[in-house]
Amino acid sequence: MLIAKVIGSTISTIKDEKLQGKKLMICREADESGEPTGKPYVAVDTVDAGVGDLVLTAHGSSGRQTFLTKDAPVDAVIMAVIDSLQVDGDVSYRKS
Amino acid sequence: MLIAKVIGSTISTIKDEKLQGKKLMICREADESGEPTGKPYVAVDTVDAGVGDLVLTAHGSSGRQTFLTKDAPVDAVIMAVIDSLQVDGDVSYRKS
Amino acid sequence: MLIAKVIGSTISTIKDEKLQGKKLMICREADESGEPTGKPYVAVDTVDAGVGDLVLTAHGSSGRQTFLTKDAPVDAVIMAVIDSLQVDGDVSYRKS
Amino acid sequence: MLIAKVIGSTISTIKDEKLQGKKLMICREADESGEPTGKPYVAVDTVDAGVGDLVLTAHGSSGRQTFLTKDAPVDAVIMAVIDSLQVDGDVSYRKS
Amino acid sequence: MLIAKVIGSTISTIKDEKLQGKKLMICREADESGEPTGKPYVAVDTVDAGVGDLVLTAHGSSGRQTFLTKDAPVDAVIMAVIDSLQVDGDVSYRKS
Repeated sequence: MLIAKVIGSTISTIKDEKLQGKKLMICREADESGEPTGKPYVAVDTVDAGVGDLVLTAHGSSGRQTFLTKDAPVDAVIMAVIDSLQVDGDVSYRKS
Repeated sequence: MLIAKVIGSTISTIKDEKLQGKKLMICREADESGEPTGKPYVAVDTVDAGVGDLVLTAHGSSGRQTFLTKDAPVDAVIMAVIDSLQVDGDVSYRKS
Repeated sequence: MLIAKVIGSTISTIKDEKLQGKKLMICREADESGEPTGKPYVAVDTVDAGVGDLVLTAHGSSGRQTFLTKDAPVDAVIMAVIDSLQVDGDVSYRKS
Repeated sequence: MLIAKVIGSTISTIKDEKLQGKKLMICREADESGEPTGKPYVAVDTVDAGVGDLVLTAHGSSGRQTFLTKDAPVDAVIMAVIDSLQVDGDVSYRKS
Repeated sequence: MLIAKVIGSTISTIKDEKLQGKKLMICREADESGEPTGKPYVAVDTVDAGVGDLVLTAHGSSGRQTFLTKDAPVDAVIMAVIDSLQVDGDVSYRKS
């Protein structure tokens, strides 16, 4: 899974029918301190994440192993909101 | 999923039989403002996207989870046309 | 799918039995003009492609969705020979 | 599989129900000497690995081929703790 | 598939039970001349490859399509030993 920061959202009228009603969030990969370091990608939100949250995203076929994304043409899913990260015994990120 | 700009199309006479009648579009990954930043790749169009459209593409086995691409040897599919993108509360892209 | 140029071939005596009789071609990813830009990888040829051809390759489990590659330990397949590519209304590549 | 160093852990209250009770460790890809060289990613621990251990991680659908991760939305799993690595006949890493 | 050079081996006592008895080799991606160019990764050997051999590795779910790796949490497999590579009509590598 990737550590990612949710930075925004997408709106699409024309889309595959299995995407109806799904929240497609823009994420950027982040480091162990929660700082965004990567380029943007889009993931289906399954845990009511909001812009600014640090989350975990699962990719590929693993992105379809949730109730909301089963059999849908989606390859990334937000499956956890991160409360805190700990590195070498120290807290490197804590949700504010 | 990747945010991508549709930049062109491909023509192939000799191809796997499951590709007959499918539109294979050339895409380039784009950033949250819709600017192309990545190298070209090819995706099957399932939403009647046109050159110049900003779209979402799903990859890997997720690219085969549409009516048009089921069981076909394709690893990328255009499954949504993007109307707008919003980042940190501001509209970063709107379809013209 | 990736746009790729076929640059060579591989010979292996010792291999998984499901690879018997398959043509394993060396490819390099190419841009929308057909110029090779990436590093080499190997794909199973299913469309009688030759060295010098510009082709499309499908990857991952999608590489196993052809008659020749079903259930085989292969992760890339040549599934189309490109006749021409068109970008922004202009022909960027045409097979000679 | 990737050679990876376990550098930390994650805590999430809000997560997919299939992640309940799973240890989600922060890993960094490492070289053949055990030195971390890559960026962080998160993997489910299935072998009771600890921070500082050098491990092997399997990715994608292969990350779901363990008793603990079956059918879960996870794309990376720690499936071995490395005792030693040998390169060109010499020991390049040994667990202390 | 990737062209790869086998550079070493790994030893793990604590591992997923499906890995028992499997040879986990350290590989580095190589170019069409057989020169290692990439970073190390680990693949299950299914063709009795040795250190110094140039091989082909299949990745992702394709890495599980051999008798030895079926249903195991492994994402890379050595499925062929390369005898020779030919590029643009010339032999670029020959096993010594």
